Amino acid sequence: MFIDPMSKPIAITMGCPAGIGPEIILQSFDQGQFDDQCRPVVIGDCGVLSRAAKLVHSQHTPVAWEPGTLIEPGTIPVLEISESTLSHVQWGHPSQESSLAMAQYIRVAVKGCLNHDFSAMVTCPLSKKSLHDAGIDFPGHTEMLAQLTGATQYRMMMAGRRLRVVLVTIHEPLAAVSKLITAGEVEDCIAMTVQSLQRDFGLPYPRVAVAGLNPHSGEQGLFGRKELDVLTPVVQGYKGRADVSGPWPPDTVFHKAAAGSFDAVVAMYHDQGLIPFKLLHFQDGVNVTLGLPIVRTSVDHGTAYDIAGKGIADPASLLAAISLAREIAVNRKKGAVNNG
Amino acid sequence: MFIDPMSKPIAITMGCPAGIGPEIILQSFDQGQFDDQCRPVVIGDCGVLSRAAKLVHSQHTPVAWEPGTLIEPGTIPVLEISESTLSHVQWGHPSQESSLAMAQYIRVAVKGCLNHDFSAMVTCPLSKKSLHDAGIDFPGHTEMLAQLTGATQYRMMMAGRRLRVVLVTIHEPLAAVSKLITAGEVEDCIAMTVQSLQRDFGLPYPRVAVAGLNPHSGEQGLFGRKELDVLTPVVQGYKGRADVSGPWPPDTVFHKAAAGSFDAVVAMYHDQGLIPFKLLHFQDGVNVTLGLPIVRTSVDHGTAYDIAGKGIADPASLLAAISLAREIAVNRKKGAVNNG
Repeated sequence: MFIDPMSKPIAITMGCPAGIGPEIILQSFDQGQFDDQCRPVVIGDCGVLSRAAKLVHSQHTPVAWEPGTLIEPGTIPVLEISESTLSHVQWGHPSQESSLAMAQYIRVAVKGCLNHDFSAMVTCPLSKKSLHDAGIDFPGHTEMLAQLTGATQYRMMMAGRRLRVVLVTIHEPLAAVSKLITAGEVEDCIAMTVQSLQRDFGLPYPRVAVAGLNPHSGEQGLFGRKELDVLTPVVQGYKGRADVSGPWPPDTVFHKAAAGSFDAVVAMYHDQGLIPFKLLHFQDGVNVTLGLPIVRTSVDHGTAYDIAGKGIADPASLLAAISLAREIAVNRKKGAVNNG
Repeated sequence: MFIDPMSKPIAITMGCPAGIGPEIILQSFDQGQFDDQCRPVVIGDCGVLSRAAKLVHSQHTPVAWEPGTLIEPGTIPVLEISESTLSHVQWGHPSQESSLAMAQYIRVAVKGCLNHDFSAMVTCPLSKKSLHDAGIDFPGHTEMLAQLTGATQYRMMMAGRRLRVVLVTIHEPLAAVSKLITAGEVEDCIAMTVQSLQRDFGLPYPRVAVAGLNPHSGEQGLFGRKELDVLTPVVQGYKGRADVSGPWPPDTVFHKAAAGSFDAVVAMYHDQGLIPFKLLHFQDGVNVTLGLPIVRTSVDHGTAYDIAGKGIADPASLLAAISLAREIAVNRKKGAVNNG
């Protein structure tokens, strides 16, 4: 039997209870236009969310909720983690307990997605340092999700209305990037980008641009040979299979993509992709994890402890992340139906 | 005696006679609003410019001109290089002769600037390959200008209304960048940026942001140590002398600068600076050479042989380069007057 993923809600993990997650969740419920295909629920803590509700003068009331039960209008349905007693947590000051709860929200959301209790998960920011201090050691959110879902190949896509970028390397010193750019890594990244654009974004013939590594794409080997030795052969290998082009000079490819020439750019390193992305989508960028068996989007910002509890955080990225999670879930559903 | 540089015209070098230089010059004269402080003259070839005039249906007639003589309204004053006989040159097809002429325009413009015949020079694009094929070996325009003016320290600034960036390293393979980022190079770059913002852009208290090299500015050494070992000490050395800050995470500093927080960003490598610059100023970016004893701005594009002679090239960058050359010349004049 095909389970309609759209009858299932989207799970929002509250992120660090001491960060801006709770208040942007409240604001998102107040500002969001959620239809039947997008009924968000929160994996978090009612107490913390109620404090945040007062802070932003919310029209919504957080209430405890269980999967399968009704969602009352005007409420924020909250699936609570029984172990958490977070009444002591102060804005901007994570504790051992709040960090353990933060990790548990993620585990519960993943499990619910794998069980089809949820159609997608949207994550609010966590603090890597707090996670580490609580004895949970992952380089980041994404790596933790990969382990929980058993994914071995995964990539970060940054998605906005004007630009989508997928990163070949992420948190590496600039000096280490060049040697990490191998044909295998680039091929995997292109393949996952093509697949995601088709399945998640509903683009049957996606146009993928591969950025060069060096200035002017190496200018025929004058400023580096990675383009000649690795990128050009990989791109040529796609001939006839998909509209993959490049390697393009990095300083103009993002302009071309933002102008509509490409559906996504495969970027070789963190700042090559994130500098243009954040310039265009500072407020409303969404992080999408490619390669997981579940749908996961995330806000494109941190816990912002310095402004947590002040009611001034901008919910634009969370709203965009919820909206994109809905879009991906709907597109995957269509694809599943079409493919029988 | 103080020679008023504003009584002197601005020299535009025609660039490669087979490229788009001639036609964007004609369009700039047709579209530009030139006041008394900005009377452009062209170092080039009347024959080539007359052909370009027909191409773009120009309202201006190129006429031979000599420094010190009157400029007639409706004309484009052209200082001709006697050796050149370029009637054979076809659009998109540079010859040995056109390349030698192209180099000679630059020499004449530099000499005229050093002699105070001109208040500034604005360069149209040349082809490095043509220059090389003609036996004139420089990595680029800027290096040739440095040699002609005897400048030993020079930097490229890309300037636009929303963003200014200055590059510490330029045409280097990405893998070579990290080891080229030394305290001395970064200090020189910051010093020249501060000086130019004060003297050329009329900003007495400029705010200069130094970008980090690594993702998240290295995240306390986790993704590279260049920030801790080199950039932070250099920035701290400016305390009390100028508003120099950083190292800032590269993926957000350009957004902050474009939003008005900084007057310029010192970027560590070509694409770190040029990706955001071209995203914001693809059409109207200007290249300014810091460190020369003369004022030099340049268009931010190449010879575009593929579209030369079609009358479709966009003169926006040349118009912006002329306007900025005028601004810098005026500001240097004010500074010279104020300093007695």
